[in-house]
Amino acid sequence: MDDLLVRLREHLPADAVITDPDITGGYAHDMASFCAAGTPAVVVLPRTVEQVQHVMRTATALRVPVVPQGARTGLSGAANASDGCIVLSLVKMDRILEVNPVDRVAVVEPGVINAVLSREVQKLGLYYPPDPSSWEMCTIGGNIGTASGGLCCVKYGVTAEYVLGLEVVLADGRLMSTGRRTAKGVAGYDLTRLFVGSEGSLGIVVKAVLALRPSPPPQLVLAAEFATAAAACDAVVRIMERGHTPSLLELMDRTTIQAVNRMAHMGLPDSTEALLLAAFDTPDPAADLAAVAELCTAAGATQVVPAEDAAESELLLQARRLSLTALETIKSATMIDDVCVPRSKLAAMIERTSAIAAKYDLTIGVCAHAGDGNTHPVVCFDAADEDESRRARESFDEIMALGLELGGTITGEHGVGVLKKEWLARELGPVGIEMQRAVKHAFDPLGLLNPGKLF
Amino acid sequence: MDDLLVRLREHLPADAVITDPDITGGYAHDMASFCAAGTPAVVVLPRTVEQVQHVMRTATALRVPVVPQGARTGLSGAANASDGCIVLSLVKMDRILEVNPVDRVAVVEPGVINAVLSREVQKLGLYYPPDPSSWEMCTIGGNIGTASGGLCCVKYGVTAEYVLGLEVVLADGRLMSTGRRTAKGVAGYDLTRLFVGSEGSLGIVVKAVLALRPSPPPQLVLAAEFATAAAACDAVVRIMERGHTPSLLELMDRTTIQAVNRMAHMGLPDSTEALLLAAFDTPDPAADLAAVAELCTAAGATQVVPAEDAAESELLLQARRLSLTALETIKSATMIDDVCVPRSKLAAMIERTSAIAAKYDLTIGVCAHAGDGNTHPVVCFDAADEDESRRARESFDEIMALGLELGGTITGEHGVGVLKKEWLARELGPVGIEMQRAVKHAFDPLGLLNPGKLF
Repeated sequence: MDDLLVRLREHLPADAVITDPDITGGYAHDMASFCAAGTPAVVVLPRTVEQVQHVMRTATALRVPVVPQGARTGLSGAANASDGCIVLSLVKMDRILEVNPVDRVAVVEPGVINAVLSREVQKLGLYYPPDPSSWEMCTIGGNIGTASGGLCCVKYGVTAEYVLGLEVVLADGRLMSTGRRTAKGVAGYDLTRLFVGSEGSLGIVVKAVLALRPSPPPQLVLAAEFATAAAACDAVVRIMERGHTPSLLELMDRTTIQAVNRMAHMGLPDSTEALLLAAFDTPDPAADLAAVAELCTAAGATQVVPAEDAAESELLLQARRLSLTALETIKSATMIDDVCVPRSKLAAMIERTSAIAAKYDLTIGVCAHAGDGNTHPVVCFDAADEDESRRARESFDEIMALGLELGGTITGEHGVGVLKKEWLARELGPVGIEMQRAVKHAFDPLGLLNPGKLF
Repeated sequence: MDDLLVRLREHLPADAVITDPDITGGYAHDMASFCAAGTPAVVVLPRTVEQVQHVMRTATALRVPVVPQGARTGLSGAANASDGCIVLSLVKMDRILEVNPVDRVAVVEPGVINAVLSREVQKLGLYYPPDPSSWEMCTIGGNIGTASGGLCCVKYGVTAEYVLGLEVVLADGRLMSTGRRTAKGVAGYDLTRLFVGSEGSLGIVVKAVLALRPSPPPQLVLAAEFATAAAACDAVVRIMERGHTPSLLELMDRTTIQAVNRMAHMGLPDSTEALLLAAFDTPDPAADLAAVAELCTAAGATQVVPAEDAAESELLLQARRLSLTALETIKSATMIDDVCVPRSKLAAMIERTSAIAAKYDLTIGVCAHAGDGNTHPVVCFDAADEDESRRARESFDEIMALGLELGGTITGEHGVGVLKKEWLARELGPVGIEMQRAVKHAFDPLGLLNPGKLF
């Protein structure tokens, strides 16, 4: 341990190596606080690529595990410390190195906060779409590690689609470039994409070239109320089948609506079973919303209210963004699931989740990126109640089993971390897992990078 | 050899195992015919996944190299046979298994021809964007192997962005599923993307889940003439900087225009230095074209002609699609380059390519996916002329060096194959190549899959 600290300090400034347990304890886990987390030996906060290389060389020399971290807003424990590890926090590497409107790229360090980048590129008429709920806090490096999604995905896709190239410090400290800054490129295996979503288990991202888009027009939102979740899902099917491309298509169930109202007094329709929010950022969003309103009505909407303007639209989005936080106030603890199913199976997913809630006598609120078939069933439970905690865990697992049964995935955007690693094996099967491990071994033969995650 | 054939025939029908050298010779190479190609021992044409597994098990048992092939329309020799290999042609596995308009996915076997799929999904109001020039012949499996591009990429991206999930037969015959059929998913490393563009060197794709989009409105095309290529590139910069999203933005230089006219009597403006084609498939393409016409004029266009209708648009596109074929008629042989640079460097790329042509006293026609910065300099030479052939090869290499110098890649969409493998090492650097090899080794430890390609 002394040796580790002495070596780390050889090429790191004093304030970049933290051992005070009162401080390092704060780096022990991400926002999935119910996942197991160990006690880090030390937290390092490098500011340069060379310092990251030094950390990895030291870790390799002394065989010390390294847990990379961004803002620790993850929901799967992927950034949780393991006992005796080096926590490698990238938050001090937070420079936007370049924004180029002609090439439509930004070059950033991993610690740049998502919202900071988004606002910076907006000044130049550009748009960085990925918008996880935590976008005001989370870092681009964390977004890359977890392949974050958000509300924009139904039209604009996930983080993976915006990462063109990376610089990565490998486990042994060597620096590797992947990918490109060009619009296209097929030179060799796509290692860039391999790193996106790898949860810090293959290397440390120290620089990223991100694709940008031109800023779209402001989006206009419509809210449609339904007497059943199935009817709302039917509307989703009609909207997508008819070839619409909404910029957002979100669903909140009654539990979620009521929780948001209680917390923020938003005046959402308290008695409706399902609220569907659809938005367009097209040249004529009102016309698109009118077409979607008709489809909602045909699917049985009891009320359809298009927002009058951008301000009203923003209010509706705010309600949606508050959903997870609001659901967290129902009981002392929550487990947030992240099952994504083919959108044709969304109604089945939501109805059967409701049956699971009844079976386990639990409150499970559901909000969903409905256009993607990505549901977030939030299991609310009292952590002090042992029996309820057990039921919560069982229902959480049953929801994942249901997702797989419906042809879906255990995680649409939150990642595997420690929370779902047993389930990853179930989704990928033995051959899949073996090849995942083979890839891991190719990059990290000593198994030092974020051990105990994913597999 | 006898043992190989006996074993192969144990689980393959007689007509699926071809040894007649008159026939197998036809499978020796793809369309980069000037790349070295060996003589296959046998060509197999499996129709089922199980048959592919049998081929790979046999190959592994007997340590025989396997070269997977689609329609052999590739331009880098990636499908070229090696001596004594099994050519594994997937063209008989050509079923479209499913098209689902709600989930917006198609499930296909690898031998499905791109145009067949495109037309099939169009009947349901859907769109499969990737459109390489060879789309009437090339297969989806080949497109996946080479990560094909096309004219659509400036708006819709490349093949990689449409591959959601795969079934892959590994080198030892085991079957692996990767990815998903959902809109989103982050369960483990993205092995799907790793296979896209891997040129058959990691495994055999036997099934693919492809993402579809709603059919866009028909595109309307504009043609703008410029007195210099630099002015045309300036127009490209203005168009992209102003936030336009054309569905196509293509450039043809004078050599290309004249070659197309000679071959197809299209009546293109023979005396102009550069022709820019821009298209929009937006709700109001005429309005978008008008805005782009203004930007072209501001950049110095000598004439701007918007197509009157879809038929006129199609004619212009046809001219562009004929470009490579037309350039091939100039001399007995061509080498088609595929350098992609940041679009801000497009003018420099084209001007300096012209200087390279002068230096080597060669005709080098350039057509380009200008909106992507992806140029195809076509080096025209007489293969019987030894000196000219040498100069052709040298100029071809110098063009790649130029691309790298300008921050680009040696291949935007055609792949590495045997043609560019020395250059891949130059682009990726020693650490990058080492990790590429490590990934290869993880999937194919015996080195049986498409040996001698990529590295």
